Amino acid sequence: MHGNGRQHHVVVVGGGFAGLWATRALAGDDVRITLVDRRNHHLFQPLLYQVATAGLSAPDIAAPLRHILRGQDNVEVRLGEVTGIDTAARRLTLADGDRLDYDTLLLASGATHAYFGHDDWADDAPGLKTLDDALRIRRRVLLAFERAEAADNPAERDAWLSFAVVGGGPTGVELAGTLAEIARKTLRREFRHIDPSAARVRLVEAGPRVLSTFPDSLSEKARRQLQKLGVEVLTDSPVSAIDAHGFTLSRKDPASPETPGTARSSDGGSAPDVQLPATDATTTTRLPGSDAPSNAAATPVTIPARTVLWAAGVAASPLGALLDAERDRAGRVVVNPDLGVPGHPDVFVAGDLASIRQDGKPVPGVAPAAKQMGTHVAAAIRARLGGQSAPVFRYRDFGNLATIGRMAAVVHFGRLKLSGLIAWWFWLVVHILFLIGFRNRLVVMLNWAWAYWSYQRHARIIFGKPDAPDDPPLM
Amino acid sequence: MHGNGRQHHVVVVGGGFAGLWATRALAGDDVRITLVDRRNHHLFQPLLYQVATAGLSAPDIAAPLRHILRGQDNVEVRLGEVTGIDTAARRLTLADGDRLDYDTLLLASGATHAYFGHDDWADDAPGLKTLDDALRIRRRVLLAFERAEAADNPAERDAWLSFAVVGGGPTGVELAGTLAEIARKTLRREFRHIDPSAARVRLVEAGPRVLSTFPDSLSEKARRQLQKLGVEVLTDSPVSAIDAHGFTLSRKDPASPETPGTARSSDGGSAPDVQLPATDATTTTRLPGSDAPSNAAATPVTIPARTVLWAAGVAASPLGALLDAERDRAGRVVVNPDLGVPGHPDVFVAGDLASIRQDGKPVPGVAPAAKQMGTHVAAAIRARLGGQSAPVFRYRDFGNLATIGRMAAVVHFGRLKLSGLIAWWFWLVVHILFLIGFRNRLVVMLNWAWAYWSYQRHARIIFGKPDAPDDPPLM
Repeated sequence: MHGNGRQHHVVVVGGGFAGLWATRALAGDDVRITLVDRRNHHLFQPLLYQVATAGLSAPDIAAPLRHILRGQDNVEVRLGEVTGIDTAARRLTLADGDRLDYDTLLLASGATHAYFGHDDWADDAPGLKTLDDALRIRRRVLLAFERAEAADNPAERDAWLSFAVVGGGPTGVELAGTLAEIARKTLRREFRHIDPSAARVRLVEAGPRVLSTFPDSLSEKARRQLQKLGVEVLTDSPVSAIDAHGFTLSRKDPASPETPGTARSSDGGSAPDVQLPATDATTTTRLPGSDAPSNAAATPVTIPARTVLWAAGVAASPLGALLDAERDRAGRVVVNPDLGVPGHPDVFVAGDLASIRQDGKPVPGVAPAAKQMGTHVAAAIRARLGGQSAPVFRYRDFGNLATIGRMAAVVHFGRLKLSGLIAWWFWLVVHILFLIGFRNRLVVMLNWAWAYWSYQRHARIIFGKPDAPDDPPLM
Repeated sequence: MHGNGRQHHVVVVGGGFAGLWATRALAGDDVRITLVDRRNHHLFQPLLYQVATAGLSAPDIAAPLRHILRGQDNVEVRLGEVTGIDTAARRLTLADGDRLDYDTLLLASGATHAYFGHDDWADDAPGLKTLDDALRIRRRVLLAFERAEAADNPAERDAWLSFAVVGGGPTGVELAGTLAEIARKTLRREFRHIDPSAARVRLVEAGPRVLSTFPDSLSEKARRQLQKLGVEVLTDSPVSAIDAHGFTLSRKDPASPETPGTARSSDGGSAPDVQLPATDATTTTRLPGSDAPSNAAATPVTIPARTVLWAAGVAASPLGALLDAERDRAGRVVVNPDLGVPGHPDVFVAGDLASIRQDGKPVPGVAPAAKQMGTHVAAAIRARLGGQSAPVFRYRDFGNLATIGRMAAVVHFGRLKLSGLIAWWFWLVVHILFLIGFRNRLVVMLNWAWAYWSYQRHARIIFGKPDAPDDPPLM
């Protein structure tokens, strides 16, 4: 009903930063656009950990795609899940059976968390990529304190008060820092049988340092800030097993003279991929057999913990596999310098699903890169429609920042290295600024101000029946 | 670990208005209190419809019971579901197997929605009592517009754009009015294949008028305000069937000279109970055979509607049945004038679970009555512990108010009858005032101001996979 058959039809799959930025950048062009997403909302992922830790409500960091794009007349939003791509016929199939013909396709379906062959860990160590994930983690964390309060014996109580976050990238650091704050501050005085501040929060990292995409000095500052917040930071500690009762480390002897690098290389085989795209790419799990080089003394240790969260790895969306195209080991589609897909002149890939190197380094899977790619694809489509060749994508790296917890963060912008309170303010301002366009900005600021003044986290609501045997997916 | 064995132990079941108010009123007394609830939060139910219609986030109208009571040292909060009551041994059993001994028990587990022998309608006509219910309804309403947008033929599209709310009490009126606003205002310009304002919203009431606990004149004003908002109000329209595709009315001929009353009497047998406790008690479903008196011409009509919401009836919490005590037909426990349970000197019942008459009329199942009962039970316990007899409960009726939708409400306070904009402001101020004690008040005000200025509803987030066959309970 929209547009006409002759107008060039761009189908964008995924309403994340890449897909949404591409769509908006095409607002003034003589194309019609269909944006397909299996969720009805755009999600501001950098604040997702706040939803998981009950500091923000889910709607505070999300907005309906339809609403964002309501004024852009050349866009149609379609709620649906892509299940097939026929590049010869230029046609997508959706889960509901409908088909969508395209002239140009932008695949921007992002990344998901990955367990590197250990999918059986998913139940016991939930990851954080969607709002549903965040609510599941929130529920699990809050219930753990309830279970501890009702526990019949000290061992059970301690296991419920033992938390672990696997993966020392930005998400893992944020989660661990906030968990420690919840235990030490937020829940103070609320329990009668347990002391929540006795909870142990461990951040478990396979490599030698947390936040390995930052300079060494900032990693070290992050570690100290985490410890000050009450987090036990375990580096050089690859996880070899996780179940409902705890996890096992094949911990390398910290005194070992030869500490391997930050898992930037792997010995292949079924070992986990180590060139991961996203912000949490810095941590990998090493499988038994691959994580214990002969020169390191590995001592398996099993640590009881009823709550283990997974922030150790991401893999590309499975939609990349539907293209007949080269993919890297994380499943990302290897793209041309213009973000087109080799052999598929009508297909672009952007965001976390795209594998591209620049100046010898992979473009990182971070929000600014995704936005830049999205905007670039819009320009590339415009150029091609005008009979020109598409321009080459250049990633502009504005820097790197990660929050650690209450009043603590690290910032690395060019030569600028900040940590502590000033970095935290910097982080806060940037994140609120990037929420521009959402009404949510005001509410997020308010919630933050309140939370930092009162130590409270207003969204401590357990959805669903607490006595359910486990927390099934929200579906 | 808390208190000592000699201190009188009050167990309060339910952290709603009755249970929470009783608990707080005992703050200064020499008792220890255990508050048991199967949810971790107190819910401000009067605004629950706003969560269902995406105007508020779930945490905006709820607060963790632990947090509310953190400063009250004689209280312990226990997350758990009561499954057994042994009044002889004065002992409760919880779903996790634990047992709780009490000296005095206050049962205040409230009400749930009831389908009066039609439990098979529950899937196709979800009710609204908990936050999970609200999120389920929100999801269903938002998905209906998405399904309509993707529909292949006009009949399917129209069925997805057909909404019905069964029950013309306050909740039904609120839901219907807000659904109409969503269709006509909120979603404007967001779809390309459908016109959301063409959606039909029907409010279906078995009795002759909506809001039957209000004076006739205000019922009539409410009807006109609903119609102005775009709601089709069907009175004298008992529902005889509901399925996934629509519902069937045994509609009485409106011209029939003898219209029965508002179902305040029933012909017994398996007919639905008609002396329902709660605010939505005004509507009942009449079963086929009981709803078609010989003097009324009943014409069954089936109306396609993919989204039917249930606001027609409530029944008492099943915990009332665990007491060996008289219950009324809605399952409420018939209590003494002091809210004690006949034959059980150690047990009180308060809130929606209590059946008590005053001046020949039942005390209504509304929040102010529950709070007053809770406070009264605290006084009764105090009196008994002091060796005095418990005082008699007197319900002070401060009036009745219901919101209808944008800038429309009705208020009945003694001789004061208001409707329209002034009633809406009155309603708004009262509801924000009653949120006192929550940080949420500020955020709710902000959300409201924003929503009423922009017509937007910020929480339009569909949780879970939209392509799931249906929306299972969040568990």
